[in-house]
Amino acid sequence: MPNYKFMTLKIGIIALFLSPSVWSQHALVFQTDFGLEEGAVASMKGVAFGVSPKLNMFDVTHEIPRFNIWEAAYRLNQVADYWPKGTVFVNVVDPGVGTARKSVVLKTKSGHFFVSPDNGSLTLVSESLGIEEVREINEKINRLEGSERSHTFHGRDVYAYTGARLASEAITYEQVGDLLEPSVMQLDYVKPKLINERIVGNVPILDAHYGNVWTNISVDLFDRLDINIGDEAWVEITDNGQELFMQKVKFVSSFGGVGIGEPAIYINDILNLGIAINQGDMANKYKIKPSSKVLFSIWK
Amino acid sequence: MPNYKFMTLKIGIIALFLSPSVWSQHALVFQTDFGLEEGAVASMKGVAFGVSPKLNMFDVTHEIPRFNIWEAAYRLNQVADYWPKGTVFVNVVDPGVGTARKSVVLKTKSGHFFVSPDNGSLTLVSESLGIEEVREINEKINRLEGSERSHTFHGRDVYAYTGARLASEAITYEQVGDLLEPSVMQLDYVKPKLINERIVGNVPILDAHYGNVWTNISVDLFDRLDINIGDEAWVEITDNGQELFMQKVKFVSSFGGVGIGEPAIYINDILNLGIAINQGDMANKYKIKPSSKVLFSIWK
Amino acid sequence: MPNYKFMTLKIGIIALFLSPSVWSQHALVFQTDFGLEEGAVASMKGVAFGVSPKLNMFDVTHEIPRFNIWEAAYRLNQVADYWPKGTVFVNVVDPGVGTARKSVVLKTKSGHFFVSPDNGSLTLVSESLGIEEVREINEKINRLEGSERSHTFHGRDVYAYTGARLASEAITYEQVGDLLEPSVMQLDYVKPKLINERIVGNVPILDAHYGNVWTNISVDLFDRLDINIGDEAWVEITDNGQELFMQKVKFVSSFGGVGIGEPAIYINDILNLGIAINQGDMANKYKIKPSSKVLFSIWK
Repeated sequence: MPNYKFMTLKIGIIALFLSPSVWSQHALVFQTDFGLEEGAVASMKGVAFGVSPKLNMFDVTHEIPRFNIWEAAYRLNQVADYWPKGTVFVNVVDPGVGTARKSVVLKTKSGHFFVSPDNGSLTLVSESLGIEEVREINEKINRLEGSERSHTFHGRDVYAYTGARLASEAITYEQVGDLLEPSVMQLDYVKPKLINERIVGNVPILDAHYGNVWTNISVDLFDRLDINIGDEAWVEITDNGQELFMQKVKFVSSFGGVGIGEPAIYINDILNLGIAINQGDMANKYKIKPSSKVLFSIWK
Repeated sequence: MPNYKFMTLKIGIIALFLSPSVWSQHALVFQTDFGLEEGAVASMKGVAFGVSPKLNMFDVTHEIPRFNIWEAAYRLNQVADYWPKGTVFVNVVDPGVGTARKSVVLKTKSGHFFVSPDNGSLTLVSESLGIEEVREINEKINRLEGSERSHTFHGRDVYAYTGARLASEAITYEQVGDLLEPSVMQLDYVKPKLINERIVGNVPILDAHYGNVWTNISVDLFDRLDINIGDEAWVEITDNGQELFMQKVKFVSSFGGVGIGEPAIYINDILNLGIAINQGDMANKYKIKPSSKVLFSIWK
Repeated sequence: MPNYKFMTLKIGIIALFLSPSVWSQHALVFQTDFGLEEGAVASMKGVAFGVSPKLNMFDVTHEIPRFNIWEAAYRLNQVADYWPKGTVFVNVVDPGVGTARKSVVLKTKSGHFFVSPDNGSLTLVSESLGIEEVREINEKINRLEGSERSHTFHGRDVYAYTGARLASEAITYEQVGDLLEPSVMQLDYVKPKLINERIVGNVPILDAHYGNVWTNISVDLFDRLDINIGDEAWVEITDNGQELFMQKVKFVSSFGGVGIGEPAIYINDILNLGIAINQGDMANKYKIKPSSKVLFSIWK
């Protein structure tokens, strides 16, 4: 007879360990343009820690160039898929803080959550991960108590607070606020095309730390040119029609496939085509800046 | 009869989960002027992790300009109140390491702890959060074993170690060391005043990442001028008597309340008055540096 | 009779709490040359979090100058000993990514693990902590699923993934891969020597944030000159034979032992001899760069 009680107790203990209210399974991942020199990021994390001391907090970066929504969109998309389902991202690159842009939480089909101003920051994750639902944050209930006088730090008072409550399951996704149309504000950008055995894409971003140049041409599209490791291909890079680079370049599996100082094309971290100089700085050498007007063409 | 035992066991399990020795409820939050380029911060965290692997560690910033005690004081005060009671801050901006300045732990009336050299870094938190007690760290017992030969890294050997032991409850506050007088070393600074319907304060710090200019005028003092959202007010900024800025400026609830490139006054993150250019750099444009000699005046 | 069952249950619960699969006792500590401006570090941590949400993750630095293997080696060695046994370091400074350099996990005699390309990064920890075993990562089993197309981000797909599995005990050290010879690639560097009551060492690195100059002369070797706190000693610094500095300098226990602006010799964080200007920038003032050709001599 007492065995039933033991079993109940054991099941209870196991359930306790599996429960997210005990083990915070969900990560809370911050991205801002605040920099790390001062206290803003720490205030956000303090608010989140006050919501639950068991949260696992991480950072994408706090060095998004200020007000650069495009780069915010790119960095979110670069990393999101490497985080498990249920991860809550809090993105605060918000030149329009306090204006009419909505504060939303996007739930993607992949099961990730993005707490962000709806200002274009969600352009790329909404495409790559798919929109499941979008809800507007109800700031009447999802706002740090006592923060009403400050109108310029939604990142702390609304976004970090709501993200922390969602990640720690203090609120459900439904309790974020009312359902909106399943769409987010989209930034314009040019998609790569294959025409006459030539692919034309652009340079959405640099891997600036190394000076590597990343394109928006996916490995799947590139595969259609049938260029294999070790082959050479023509690469042309133009800025607003002006030629910056035009050369035959080797396709390598890693930079060691060419000599030091030589250019190479390769598949980058997020499975797009990139071009780099082995142990050199491609972007600086050829004055390549990320822009929808910087076109990258490749053909055999 | 066996029910009593079950109850005891259940209570034991619940107590275990509520106990800080199992759930590290307290955050350990670091601030230094070490920068993040080298290993000093990682050594501090390694020592703390060695004290307890369950500690929750965070950072205010490690980019305090070196030896800048005033900025250390400001940043601690900017963030402390957003962290829950029981949080232990370890502050290491310590130009006088190894000299006669005392190593202390301040307990504030708000229930926060500050492990720091007593060199002025605690000026602002001691005022805003109130002094409950001050104890001097007894380095004979609160010092990493085997660290006696190094005299220049108290941050790691004494402060991180003591902070970690306090946050993980390996020691009580009383075990830090002897009680001192309930005061800490105070840096001089000018408090804002309302005279003849004009408030004169100064510029203690910049929100340097954006170039926003922060004053030491609290929202409560500012309210006495009876300026409402949308109103304009005269603002004058002088440096050592020389005029840097003199203009009528709109009071906004957020930067969207003025056009891009226009100045605005607003209530900042920590409920002081600030002045900024919407999506611009106020400090750079008007050559405003933080200083007790940079006066900020405002009147209707 | 039921007491046995209770005891079993209690022991089970205690075991559960002591088990690393419940409490992640091991830290996972990252070091790279990626910088923090973009998403690479966050992708690594996302992969590790996907392996186990209970991991404790930390950073040495992500600001190793790019491709600077010597500095990577130095920083690892500077911090490793302050982390407890069982800590797993993931080092990704890897100019040869994708080439023939091996991917290894070094287990030191001190019980630390280092996941790294075998490119010289492990030179100093292998000496100071001792080599217990070296294993080559078997990338067929220790590689993030679905990452086969990207060949340039071993840091995420192989190193972070393997480090996370090792730290969370998803794999044992033996499951990393085959045993190699117990050695790692060694960078050349000059060891300090005592000749005719004069020690000659070099300047392996700067404490660049402060401009302090660190030598590779250990406190144990220095003790043999019998110079005591408060004594003066001759210091000569030369670069490729050219004199940069030649002066009698006081040996202090901390910088407060000399006036502001004066040079001092002292024992640094990791118990080597250093020279600094109290609240000044020694390296900048005397144009001292870290190099095996910058010799530092000291005598009474």
